[in-house]
Amino acid sequence: MNPVLTILKIGGNILDMPQDQSEVLATFADIPAPRILVHGGGRRSSEISKKMGITPNMAEGRRITDQDTLEVVTMVYAGLINKNLVARLQSMNCQSIGLSGADGNAIQARKRALGEIDYGYAGDIVSVNANLINGFLQQAITPVFCSITHDLAGQLLNTNADTIAAHIAVAMTVYYDVRLLFCFEKDGVLTDPTDERSVITRLSEDLYSQYRQSGTIRDGMVPKLDNAFYAKRSGVQKVVICGQQGIAAQTGTEICL
Amino acid sequence: MNPVLTILKIGGNILDMPQDQSEVLATFADIPAPRILVHGGGRRSSEISKKMGITPNMAEGRRITDQDTLEVVTMVYAGLINKNLVARLQSMNCQSIGLSGADGNAIQARKRALGEIDYGYAGDIVSVNANLINGFLQQAITPVFCSITHDLAGQLLNTNADTIAAHIAVAMTVYYDVRLLFCFEKDGVLTDPTDERSVITRLSEDLYSQYRQSGTIRDGMVPKLDNAFYAKRSGVQKVVICGQQGIAAQTGTEICL
Repeated sequence: MNPVLTILKIGGNILDMPQDQSEVLATFADIPAPRILVHGGGRRSSEISKKMGITPNMAEGRRITDQDTLEVVTMVYAGLINKNLVARLQSMNCQSIGLSGADGNAIQARKRALGEIDYGYAGDIVSVNANLINGFLQQAITPVFCSITHDLAGQLLNTNADTIAAHIAVAMTVYYDVRLLFCFEKDGVLTDPTDERSVITRLSEDLYSQYRQSGTIRDGMVPKLDNAFYAKRSGVQKVVICGQQGIAAQTGTEICL
Repeated sequence: MNPVLTILKIGGNILDMPQDQSEVLATFADIPAPRILVHGGGRRSSEISKKMGITPNMAEGRRITDQDTLEVVTMVYAGLINKNLVARLQSMNCQSIGLSGADGNAIQARKRALGEIDYGYAGDIVSVNANLINGFLQQAITPVFCSITHDLAGQLLNTNADTIAAHIAVAMTVYYDVRLLFCFEKDGVLTDPTDERSVITRLSEDLYSQYRQSGTIRDGMVPKLDNAFYAKRSGVQKVVICGQQGIAAQTGTEICL
């Protein structure tokens, strides 16, 4: 049997709330090693873009990573958020290291091909350097990943944090039984967004398909769940969508095939 | 005899000029491993502060690292500059990893004590984790350090990049014969700032003392040379202040005791 590796992805809402962030980091630091943290961006990059007079470049409701936006997300995700998270984990006696995909060539991506929409400097993952990541884990160092990758030709790219968490999880199944937790502002996937108690405890592919057709699951939940199902189908032992109260017990919406 | 380790510190002017930066990175990637890069900030943090409407907080001509300034330097040094340097080195087949002092607890500092001036979030180095850094070098990974440290209590701090380079160099003398190169916009320390050919090829402590008294060496050169002499006195085998043309041959102003 392989050793257990826990990967926690935390999103914007947790990063935006200092109290929530402290609680989540303390919970994360209490998870038995080996463990990996993956974080998204939060509102800070929008605030900082606005302060710098950068207008968000949108196409069909999605943000386009133009040159200015890439600079801001690189600053905010890889700099401000990543280094503050690492410093706080260090203060909790969690020996950690902050990484973008460029560092150690941890995550190589390619610029998304031009389709109907030009997403700009958006990166689709090509490979994860599982050997490098395992090296850190073997030395009892906890990697903290931001959602910036690179193309190995000198270009940084912006990659969705859920996608990064899923791809790292799949890559690490070579060495570990991987548990992947997507932590967000709800206690799990809800059948009724207005009712916090309507958590779906087990979500199978069939049920997901039905909920998508009925519109019960939509918008931002769809790419998150697509990443979750990709991980589960690709050998990640346990995949859970949870709130911060569900991290320790790994309870929320468990993904089933 | 210990193996040789080369540490190159590059400053603002090189970072500000794309052509110079490319040349210096190519030269650095050609230095036989093991090697370490340390970088400062350059004009980007001032430009970005200005765009964000942050007024530089100055005291007696020195910049004070207030909360807003700390956020900007963390974004620009640890995010924008560090990750772009690493991505470019990766494209040159140099397996590298970007680090702040918080990452792996590589460099612990303490907030500078209140004196006549409150420098804000300025960090004086307490310890360098030579074992961690050596671990990277042993794996043929080139560390790229930005000038952000932490206090192991969750606070990031702003630390002079020359000081970081000197302290890393001294710490690594346990394992290596260390060569430390401070690369800047001149070909070395000049006796006449208006004459680029007036490079002092060998600078002893006595000569430095004389030049300081006469005012021939002053302003920003003083802290740089204080760091250089600290390194040389503390066991670093070779310390050179050089221009980018002097990196490969390690020629410029060599520090002597």
